[in-house]
Amino acid sequence: MNKKLKIFSVISILLFALSCKEESALKTVTTEEEQHPKLILTAQGVKDIRAQLGTIPIFDKTLEKVKAEIDAEIEAGIDVPVPKDYSGGYTHVRHKRNWVVLQKAGVLYQILDDEKYAKYAKDMLMQYEALYNTLPVHPKTRSYARGKLFWQCLNDSNWLVYVSQAYDCIYTYLSEEERNKLEKNLFRPFADYISIENPKFYQRVHNHSTWGNAAVGMIGLVMDDQELIDRALYGIKDLKLNTNEKDDDGGYLNKDGKAGFLANIEEPFSPDGYYNEGPYYQRYAMYPFLIFAEGLHNVKPELKIFEYKNGVLIKSIKALLNLSDADGDFFPLNDGQKGMSYYNNALVTAVDISYHYGDQDPGLLSIAKEQNHVLLDDSGLAVALGIKNGEAKPFEKKSINLSDGPDGTQGGVGILRNEDLELVFKYAAQGSSHGHYDKLSYSLYENGDEVIQDYGLARFVNIEQKGGGNYLKENKTWAKQTIAHNTITQNETSHFSGKYDIGSQHHSVLNYFSSENENVKVVSAKEENAYPGTELLRTMAIIKDEAFEKPFMLDIMKITSDTANQYDYPFYFLGQVIKANFEYNTPESLNALGTKNGYQHLFLEGSTKSSTDNSKLSWLNKNKFYTLTTLTNTNDNLLFTRIGANDPEFNLRREAAFMIRRENTQNTLFVSTIEAHGSYSPVSESAINSNSNIKAIEVVLDTEDYTAIAITTINDTTKIFITANTNASNKPTHKLEINNKNYEWSGSYYFK
Amino acid sequence: MNKKLKIFSVISILLFALSCKEESALKTVTTEEEQHPKLILTAQGVKDIRAQLGTIPIFDKTLEKVKAEIDAEIEAGIDVPVPKDYSGGYTHVRHKRNWVVLQKAGVLYQILDDEKYAKYAKDMLMQYEALYNTLPVHPKTRSYARGKLFWQCLNDSNWLVYVSQAYDCIYTYLSEEERNKLEKNLFRPFADYISIENPKFYQRVHNHSTWGNAAVGMIGLVMDDQELIDRALYGIKDLKLNTNEKDDDGGYLNKDGKAGFLANIEEPFSPDGYYNEGPYYQRYAMYPFLIFAEGLHNVKPELKIFEYKNGVLIKSIKALLNLSDADGDFFPLNDGQKGMSYYNNALVTAVDISYHYGDQDPGLLSIAKEQNHVLLDDSGLAVALGIKNGEAKPFEKKSINLSDGPDGTQGGVGILRNEDLELVFKYAAQGSSHGHYDKLSYSLYENGDEVIQDYGLARFVNIEQKGGGNYLKENKTWAKQTIAHNTITQNETSHFSGKYDIGSQHHSVLNYFSSENENVKVVSAKEENAYPGTELLRTMAIIKDEAFEKPFMLDIMKITSDTANQYDYPFYFLGQVIKANFEYNTPESLNALGTKNGYQHLFLEGSTKSSTDNSKLSWLNKNKFYTLTTLTNTNDNLLFTRIGANDPEFNLRREAAFMIRRENTQNTLFVSTIEAHGSYSPVSESAINSNSNIKAIEVVLDTEDYTAIAITTINDTTKIFITANTNASNKPTHKLEINNKNYEWSGSYYFK
Repeated sequence: MNKKLKIFSVISILLFALSCKEESALKTVTTEEEQHPKLILTAQGVKDIRAQLGTIPIFDKTLEKVKAEIDAEIEAGIDVPVPKDYSGGYTHVRHKRNWVVLQKAGVLYQILDDEKYAKYAKDMLMQYEALYNTLPVHPKTRSYARGKLFWQCLNDSNWLVYVSQAYDCIYTYLSEEERNKLEKNLFRPFADYISIENPKFYQRVHNHSTWGNAAVGMIGLVMDDQELIDRALYGIKDLKLNTNEKDDDGGYLNKDGKAGFLANIEEPFSPDGYYNEGPYYQRYAMYPFLIFAEGLHNVKPELKIFEYKNGVLIKSIKALLNLSDADGDFFPLNDGQKGMSYYNNALVTAVDISYHYGDQDPGLLSIAKEQNHVLLDDSGLAVALGIKNGEAKPFEKKSINLSDGPDGTQGGVGILRNEDLELVFKYAAQGSSHGHYDKLSYSLYENGDEVIQDYGLARFVNIEQKGGGNYLKENKTWAKQTIAHNTITQNETSHFSGKYDIGSQHHSVLNYFSSENENVKVVSAKEENAYPGTELLRTMAIIKDEAFEKPFMLDIMKITSDTANQYDYPFYFLGQVIKANFEYNTPESLNALGTKNGYQHLFLEGSTKSSTDNSKLSWLNKNKFYTLTTLTNTNDNLLFTRIGANDPEFNLRREAAFMIRRENTQNTLFVSTIEAHGSYSPVSESAINSNSNIKAIEVVLDTEDYTAIAITTINDTTKIFITANTNASNKPTHKLEINNKNYEWSGSYYFK
Repeated sequence: MNKKLKIFSVISILLFALSCKEESALKTVTTEEEQHPKLILTAQGVKDIRAQLGTIPIFDKTLEKVKAEIDAEIEAGIDVPVPKDYSGGYTHVRHKRNWVVLQKAGVLYQILDDEKYAKYAKDMLMQYEALYNTLPVHPKTRSYARGKLFWQCLNDSNWLVYVSQAYDCIYTYLSEEERNKLEKNLFRPFADYISIENPKFYQRVHNHSTWGNAAVGMIGLVMDDQELIDRALYGIKDLKLNTNEKDDDGGYLNKDGKAGFLANIEEPFSPDGYYNEGPYYQRYAMYPFLIFAEGLHNVKPELKIFEYKNGVLIKSIKALLNLSDADGDFFPLNDGQKGMSYYNNALVTAVDISYHYGDQDPGLLSIAKEQNHVLLDDSGLAVALGIKNGEAKPFEKKSINLSDGPDGTQGGVGILRNEDLELVFKYAAQGSSHGHYDKLSYSLYENGDEVIQDYGLARFVNIEQKGGGNYLKENKTWAKQTIAHNTITQNETSHFSGKYDIGSQHHSVLNYFSSENENVKVVSAKEENAYPGTELLRTMAIIKDEAFEKPFMLDIMKITSDTANQYDYPFYFLGQVIKANFEYNTPESLNALGTKNGYQHLFLEGSTKSSTDNSKLSWLNKNKFYTLTTLTNTNDNLLFTRIGANDPEFNLRREAAFMIRRENTQNTLFVSTIEAHGSYSPVSESAINSNSNIKAIEVVLDTEDYTAIAITTINDTTKIFITANTNASNKPTHKLEINNKNYEWSGSYYFK
């Protein structure tokens, strides 16, 4: 059967089913139990969906897929095994699968009004009911908060967030006796276990707790249990935890005593919607935030949850979408696994809910189209109708500055975009226990491909063979360390000495962000606490200039210190070295560059003393050329390094960096450009524009207040970039003389 | 303007142009000069094309693109610089571009009948005419046969092959005087220079010479110069070269005195159409073979060139297409640059010509569709019409055995395919000067992704910064060496001691090839000369078994030797180590594994003594899991290596291998399976079927005549694979007793 015909058949069957069941369908929404479903589907929503079925392509297609998936599960039979495994093991995977299947079966029951799905969900829930009260704490001991179905309470909470929705969907299908049985033996003790019995998990501001709060709150909404709802919104009543205790990751368990869902919205989101742990964890956290918010909106509209903190939940979704590259992959700031993208199911939820409950941004519809999948609920219907009505517009990602911190005063993340280049500059706060020690670091992308990479996390999420799928020790010894990032490491020591309790007291400070000029986007920020006594001021620009084929990056790192130090300044380029304008030596044996703070994981593959003012390195990655031009002194060491030393289980990727090491220096400037240029085709074997367009870069002025860089192309045109190091934004006009020429401008920088 | 509208406009303009020029169009094909064009376009062909324009989408689209390209060139103006650069340098790139532009301008003149194109081509040719006689030999000295426009005669020949076509197209546009001028001062001396004045380049069997022959022959056909045509077909008359002299690559210049185009068809192609240097060079060589053959077919039909040697030219194209992976990339046997594919222009020529002058295989139309481009000549018209008429069918790649050698008696290449797995097994002859020392080596692919890689060449073709775009010294010290390949290296020495004159005397011998069984494909071959006194018999199978998710590879290497040796047996896997079933040590410092024969380029990253009968290694590549299970003795060394030692310019890719080292051993067996299994999604973070399905592999019998392997799955089902080491194909029935059980079968192998 071809695909079109198949869809048509499914729809025909659906319509037939609906006409046959009209009576019972109406019954569902007119009896005294009409308050169910009410959580993510509403009685009215179900009516509307049923009325539109067969005419809303993306919804119909999603429904068809989900139906096929659940029909196969029903065919395969129910399995509710006794828990025993870590992530990736069978019992873990099966229970995880069950929560998905239950939720979908519930939704199918509502939309298709076919009792087969309700019966299946009921049967599985009854097996859980029978099992749950027999369960001890999970036998695997690695977690600070062990669950019962899973090795960590976090996964138990995931389960309840989904299963609450299933319960809501089949609520009216169940007898009162059945409901009492489930609530008494399964849901209520389940909710109590992950909250009251695990306060270290539940009673804090952390993405884990958000799941816990949402789980307790959602089952509370279904059960109409105000005590559970309050426990979800405000935390466990009258419970105060030791504010100095830490968790496995080194984060404080509950430093300021805040807890509950509202505190979890309040604390981690900045007013711009940036989530303090970064996009990878925001993606993970979004689902419970939004699905519980949707439930609250539907059941407790008086809470006006989507307006909470100036509508930050909806704002955060747009922030999150902007924190993705051209392919939709999230920038791996802090602990982030590469490849996670807005195709993740949590983002389907996020996009659909923010469309429906937000301002119906037509840009979101284009992302929903790419996702090719909608929620099977009221919001998914809204999206499907929007797409059907041709309202989708491209989601335009812009250069954007996202503040960090509950009040937006703890630094932030700046994203500069021009044509295919994207630069992500991090000057944020620590980022909770998933934060990396990388103040003023950046990564650079061209059309979704990494040019200068951020390593991301050291973990193979859910691949059991790699440390149970959990964080590997190299996450701490390598991925979190400063030297793993594209920023300054002073004296081979990480920022804040790699100490979480110091790092979490500080954040960098924005100097300025400027994105008004179509051709020049700049972000500049200062860090004074990473190394006490040393001030780092980094200004980064993406500049589109007519003399260049593509935009280029300009990077000015100004260091002012009380003492003489060693500064390491790496560039984690990806790809193959094409050319260097300096000679270098490559050692016979490769040895680690150091013994600690991440240096133990770097092999030294080549080195030299710099001999010119401008050191240049070109490389080829994914058939595109790149050239770094960087100011060097004759005493600078130029190092080629490669990740992978002291990595006894091959947990790290063998990727390269080029590094400038400047020793015994107090105040200094690192200035670099990175050009993206040309291309190579292995099919036509033609190399186009494979050489740098820059003849020289030069510092023409460097004072406390200003730094000026001259960039001269191979055709001898020179452009001057001047950045204001102080008073960047509050000075109406800047005046300056450089080499007997007067410069006068308003704004934070000058470029001409 | 949107795309459709644009195409429509172009077509309208074309039609308008045609109607206005009807008279002159007719003139072109009705005057006494009607024999032009005759080479790749014919007078009748031009008529047909003009008649169909606007109704043949793929042709129209190609024409539109080519027109836009040449219009832009005409706009930019002509540049014919004085030659000075190597590949990648400006003058090289410009002259290379010019030959393309001239050919296209000529074709456009014929098809569009617009004098602008003829004038442009004429003007440029006249600049070449003015320049050529002033030119000394090219100033760059690296080549054994320096050109005048380019650093090597090869590129001069490329130029003439294309420019002959241009000349043919504008022949009637030029006055007799202009033609005389061009022929006397440019074409004739050009043809003489690349042939008579460079006999070492011209007078041999080699892809370089093929270009030379075609160049001389094509200009001969246009000029109707029988002497040049004969020189092209049969070589320079009465010239005998020293048969012991060698070229830069270590190949004999002319070992047996053969020369000319026909000899170049005769020698390198086997009767199955396999080209002895491998697919990368076949692709390169195909263009002159086919374009000159097309010209000969049109001008000298009596030669029946497409029937020469049982139609080997057309056969070779199907062989070449079968030598590509699922993405159309050619297997990098011998010197081959990865990424070269049937999207290369030479393959557009190959596919169109073999469709038109061959048997109109509808499978070729589907490849032409993927190429999305046709030749702007008679054959391209035929393809465009075939596609337009809906005749395209999928090009089905099968398991295929391609013999090597002029008579098909010098070994060959076997390709085993099942579902997404492809295994390429090389048991061929040396492969001329581009051959690698890798008898009985293989590479393995899953759906176009390399699982076990062949390194390919060490060269960045046409990237000037990397050794002028030419072969790097690592091609010889690494890429050609045996240890760079997935086969046996004995005593850390390459096959034939890495000596070309020894290697080129030998080839491996097929034991059997079997592809009839849908589920089991097997190739088996023997090598007796790589290491005198040692016989290598390798049997490789791709097996689809119901107990496995995907097909798996079985590899049996049987070694029989007069002496005790050290055997190294590497697996060049790509990706990240997931799990090993053995403990291993990783050194603090990385050192080269050896000092010569390629070993100097391998770092030792880990090692251990094997402690079990079955050593297992799993890895993850491109989100798919793989597991090697290999028989090991307790004395075996298990090594992890990485390419990149002694690589002072970062010319080599830092890729890994797992290697078994068996010391002080005379006769032995290496037996391995590689399973492709499961998948990982970084978006859903789910790992599916991430573990091996094999519990154990075991040798249950090993005699001179038979080797039998038992493969037991984790569910304890056992299958037996028995291969006939002798009398594989000429024995009607095999009978055997293993562990008190009788086995009886006909055919070369048993599997059940």
